[in-house]
Amino acid sequence: MKQVFLDSVSLEEAVERVNHMLDERGLQSIGFEIVRVTDSLGRVSAGPVFAKYSSPFYHSAAMDGYAVRFADTFTAGETSPSLLRIGSDALYVNTGNPMPDGFNAIVMLEDVNLKEDCIEIYQPVSPYQNVRTIGEDIVATELVIPENHLIRPIDMGAMLSSGHIELKVRKKTKISVIPTGSEIIEPERVRNRPPLPPEIIEYNSTVIQGLAFELGAETTRFPIIADDFEAIKKAILDAAASSDIVVINAGAGRGTEDYTLAAIQSLGEVLVNGVSIRPGKPAIIGIVNNKPVFGLPGYPVSAYITFRLFVKPVIEKLSGITSEGDGSIQAVLSRQVASTLGVDEFVRVKVGVVGGKNIATPLGRGAGLLMSLVRADGMIRIPANSEGLSAGSEVEVDLLRSKEVISKTIVCIGSHDNTLDILANNIKKKYPKYSLSSAHVGSMGGLMALSRGEAHLAGTHLLDEITGEYNISFIKRFLPGKKIVLINLVYRQQGFLLKKGNPKKILGFDDLLRDDVVFINRQTGSGTRLLLDKCLKEQKIESSLIKGYERDEYTHMAVASAVLSGLADTGLGIYSSAKALNLDFLPLASERYDLAVPLEFMDMETMQPILKTIREDQEFRDIVQSMGGYDTRDMGKVIFES
Amino acid sequence: MKQVFLDSVSLEEAVERVNHMLDERGLQSIGFEIVRVTDSLGRVSAGPVFAKYSSPFYHSAAMDGYAVRFADTFTAGETSPSLLRIGSDALYVNTGNPMPDGFNAIVMLEDVNLKEDCIEIYQPVSPYQNVRTIGEDIVATELVIPENHLIRPIDMGAMLSSGHIELKVRKKTKISVIPTGSEIIEPERVRNRPPLPPEIIEYNSTVIQGLAFELGAETTRFPIIADDFEAIKKAILDAAASSDIVVINAGAGRGTEDYTLAAIQSLGEVLVNGVSIRPGKPAIIGIVNNKPVFGLPGYPVSAYITFRLFVKPVIEKLSGITSEGDGSIQAVLSRQVASTLGVDEFVRVKVGVVGGKNIATPLGRGAGLLMSLVRADGMIRIPANSEGLSAGSEVEVDLLRSKEVISKTIVCIGSHDNTLDILANNIKKKYPKYSLSSAHVGSMGGLMALSRGEAHLAGTHLLDEITGEYNISFIKRFLPGKKIVLINLVYRQQGFLLKKGNPKKILGFDDLLRDDVVFINRQTGSGTRLLLDKCLKEQKIESSLIKGYERDEYTHMAVASAVLSGLADTGLGIYSSAKALNLDFLPLASERYDLAVPLEFMDMETMQPILKTIREDQEFRDIVQSMGGYDTRDMGKVIFES
Repeated sequence: MKQVFLDSVSLEEAVERVNHMLDERGLQSIGFEIVRVTDSLGRVSAGPVFAKYSSPFYHSAAMDGYAVRFADTFTAGETSPSLLRIGSDALYVNTGNPMPDGFNAIVMLEDVNLKEDCIEIYQPVSPYQNVRTIGEDIVATELVIPENHLIRPIDMGAMLSSGHIELKVRKKTKISVIPTGSEIIEPERVRNRPPLPPEIIEYNSTVIQGLAFELGAETTRFPIIADDFEAIKKAILDAAASSDIVVINAGAGRGTEDYTLAAIQSLGEVLVNGVSIRPGKPAIIGIVNNKPVFGLPGYPVSAYITFRLFVKPVIEKLSGITSEGDGSIQAVLSRQVASTLGVDEFVRVKVGVVGGKNIATPLGRGAGLLMSLVRADGMIRIPANSEGLSAGSEVEVDLLRSKEVISKTIVCIGSHDNTLDILANNIKKKYPKYSLSSAHVGSMGGLMALSRGEAHLAGTHLLDEITGEYNISFIKRFLPGKKIVLINLVYRQQGFLLKKGNPKKILGFDDLLRDDVVFINRQTGSGTRLLLDKCLKEQKIESSLIKGYERDEYTHMAVASAVLSGLADTGLGIYSSAKALNLDFLPLASERYDLAVPLEFMDMETMQPILKTIREDQEFRDIVQSMGGYDTRDMGKVIFES
Repeated sequence: MKQVFLDSVSLEEAVERVNHMLDERGLQSIGFEIVRVTDSLGRVSAGPVFAKYSSPFYHSAAMDGYAVRFADTFTAGETSPSLLRIGSDALYVNTGNPMPDGFNAIVMLEDVNLKEDCIEIYQPVSPYQNVRTIGEDIVATELVIPENHLIRPIDMGAMLSSGHIELKVRKKTKISVIPTGSEIIEPERVRNRPPLPPEIIEYNSTVIQGLAFELGAETTRFPIIADDFEAIKKAILDAAASSDIVVINAGAGRGTEDYTLAAIQSLGEVLVNGVSIRPGKPAIIGIVNNKPVFGLPGYPVSAYITFRLFVKPVIEKLSGITSEGDGSIQAVLSRQVASTLGVDEFVRVKVGVVGGKNIATPLGRGAGLLMSLVRADGMIRIPANSEGLSAGSEVEVDLLRSKEVISKTIVCIGSHDNTLDILANNIKKKYPKYSLSSAHVGSMGGLMALSRGEAHLAGTHLLDEITGEYNISFIKRFLPGKKIVLINLVYRQQGFLLKKGNPKKILGFDDLLRDDVVFINRQTGSGTRLLLDKCLKEQKIESSLIKGYERDEYTHMAVASAVLSGLADTGLGIYSSAKALNLDFLPLASERYDLAVPLEFMDMETMQPILKTIREDQEFRDIVQSMGGYDTRDMGKVIFES
């Protein structure tokens, strides 16, 4: 009934086929145009620019002073100054003025003594002293910029200075982006109402246009085309006629409504149909009317990665502009990453500079996780011949943010609390150079990250069942020998998150045992899970009897979202997550949520904006209070030092 | 009569005064505006963006396959498949389709066996397997991007995906650039004729606009204003009324026609009048009608450096955009650089990666040398408390080109020949990733650079007076123990460069002794100088009797330019330089011009485009031949190996 990806090729083979196609079809550049030098910033020269005129074009004064004849000053000395008459033997000139005829040196103002209509000079002047001679900067006919040169502001200056008003540059690469899919809608449609299933808001084309724009291309976005074979064919033909590169997104899969492959096949030639990479496997590359056509997969991360791997190099070849991005760095992988043999896998990572080491921490790997790209600092590639990388491996990270930004980022790994989002925003707002980036792996995960030296701080709310105290005993036990400063962020209400109006009438833990109640849990090692297990133990409830106990999520908002969507009837979470999604909330306990900071990081420059915010910023406290369920009475106070 | 720079302040003090002014005047940002998300690339968010809707907004299929109820598959096994009826118990869905009501898992196409109107499943399905649940990517209310975030393509995607159509961004900083100077002309004026003294082609404003544009600013260039106090005052007032920052260039000096200082003084307040930096000393900073006003010096390098030091940080503060340029690297200084105590000096350098070390070689230091910026890979700063740096010092280079470009650059240091310009262009044209950069220090200087490990190759034409052979004996003597491959580039005609028509009737060396003949020399260590000295010795002419023997230039074109301009009547040079400037030429000798390449660099990837060009590229040979005076018969041949 359907093709599976029997025909998929390796990444290298796919790249090779594209390059071969460009060579074979003579697609090396897309022609030239003449532009004004003053409009040429960021363009690429299509020929060498040789100086038309010299600069300076005449001998001129390099200083404010008097033009003299050097021969008149041969005998000048401290006690026997040369006396030169202004107007005949010495002429005042400003910097840049042409040398008056017959004069061949400049004496600086500071070096003369003005005497009525004469100047006194106390030492001999050498020929052409303080004179800018013809061609001192640029000599006519010399090379100003070569062909294939990306024009910078200073290059425009040099071209103008050497007499050029226009120059020949490569034409901009024209790219058409065709969004397809019957369920895809324009963003404008959700201005006043949420998307209605099966609607999906179109955004891949905007991302693709942005990426192409950064490479100096001109982009055209086609209107959204429904999943209609003839309409898609027509759009491809129109796009191929009016542009240099065609990008279709999506319809690259093998579903019953995916027509990209068939459309390219019927109009031209398919070169690649599936690539063994992840994400991005169902990429299609073809050629229609001598224009490269790329069918990119619909998942946002797949679209992004396949654009970078296949479309970007073609734009670079045609435009002559290489986007070097933010380069790459070596980092140490903080966790093990498994990968499938035979597939090149691209993993998004956060990078933190912790204790002088670059630490790369893998982010969510789903192809649909756009936010994993927004949050990522870079990507690592796990080659097809590897089954994965172990924690501690040296990896090369292809950066998506600059090293500067990364070096000014505080890495927070641990429990999730909405206050961290507010804190992150407050930092960026008031201290724009600094960032707080947080990864949510639960309280225990945070302490483990501190012990491995992967994080600058950890958010934690671990309840000791015996002492009833938070965090301290865990720090003593799991971070022995490490000096930790425990600082309070907030006290917060934990409770049951419930659908609006509590339709299932859930009033306590007993209700979790009911047949009609589905629970959603937090992951092992999270403070919320510990709280749940402590309560179940106290009430002698067997966890295996709770439906959904084994299904876990990593954040409060994910649990709230599961309840809102009907995936579950209830779960434990904090008040602010209930409030954010308009859920009901049944309070259970007030818990202390602290930040654990290794003493060695307390004095770091990057840490100060955070400490200042939680200790002194009243506006920040007010915002946190207004979210509800939070008590800021101890915010910023040191609770414990180990 | 005039102020000297008694009031100039240190760089730190100047920066401090600007910052204090911004703080005091409340100039921290310049307001906000609403833009469409699709138009927001490169803008800076003026508030946090929290997700309006979750993404996905409903449970949807993560794979092409069949939606099922997981409870129906509990008993499935290899030998006892579950049989589900299509239409009631299994529904076909494409990736992205909403989950049909009452269904809670997807079985992939690959995992089912299709049997008429049923599917067979061979293992149990877990709840929500292959289902993208609500909020899997983005949960409503979560932080998508913080305030002060520079928007990238992927951020636009995330905002659209979470329901945003518009967002609030910082307004673009508006900058007015006012070019002043009675001698300044629009570039258009030299379209069909050279500049006529005292004309100077305006280009600083284009460079400044380009630099500001790269920081996300909107720029307005005023028409050129003559040196007229009232006209300059009016332009400053107009600019302050219509923009956030005013840049005047030039008139910042202390000449009789420099009105910038007086104009700012009469309209507002002067904060800084002269900074102890070089280049860039006569910079003026003030404020008029609450708008920062910068009077930048007229020399192009001074204008560039003072823009970077003073204007750029203000744009960054107002716009929230930080241009990180290409970062910085550590390098070893190849030559001594002297500097004046009390002045922060900025020196342009070429950077080459030679034998694994970054080598920084200082370029011409004149403030008027625009080409020193075009050619520079970066700048180093010699602090005010230093008298200079010795060769071998570790320096930090603020890069003007990317590390990638620098790493693919072959550094050629040595004698100048116009063929090198043609070679450099040919490399960039046919191998766009690679560059050839050459510094002209004469043949001996080139061999010395090779011996210090500062260059990949050296152009050389050193004539041995005794053997009559070129280069080989010098390599043996000055590079003992180093394995050098000597490759011919060209044979070329050396001779007397003479004004058109040879008005002084110079016919040989004897004429150099005439009273009315001024000579221009090449620097000691250049092959041309050796040739001259050999000829003078043979003809028993005393060099001290030649007027101008002591004045030297570093390139053939500079000598040709001196002859053209009348600075000298004749000098020795190669035929192509005479031809380029339309001079007469009296041939003297055919000499061999070779490239000396250390054996260790012959196999470097970066060296191959050069070797390929001189060995195989017929087009390159044709261009060299067409320049005249060259013989390419041995081009690319190995002459000698040590």
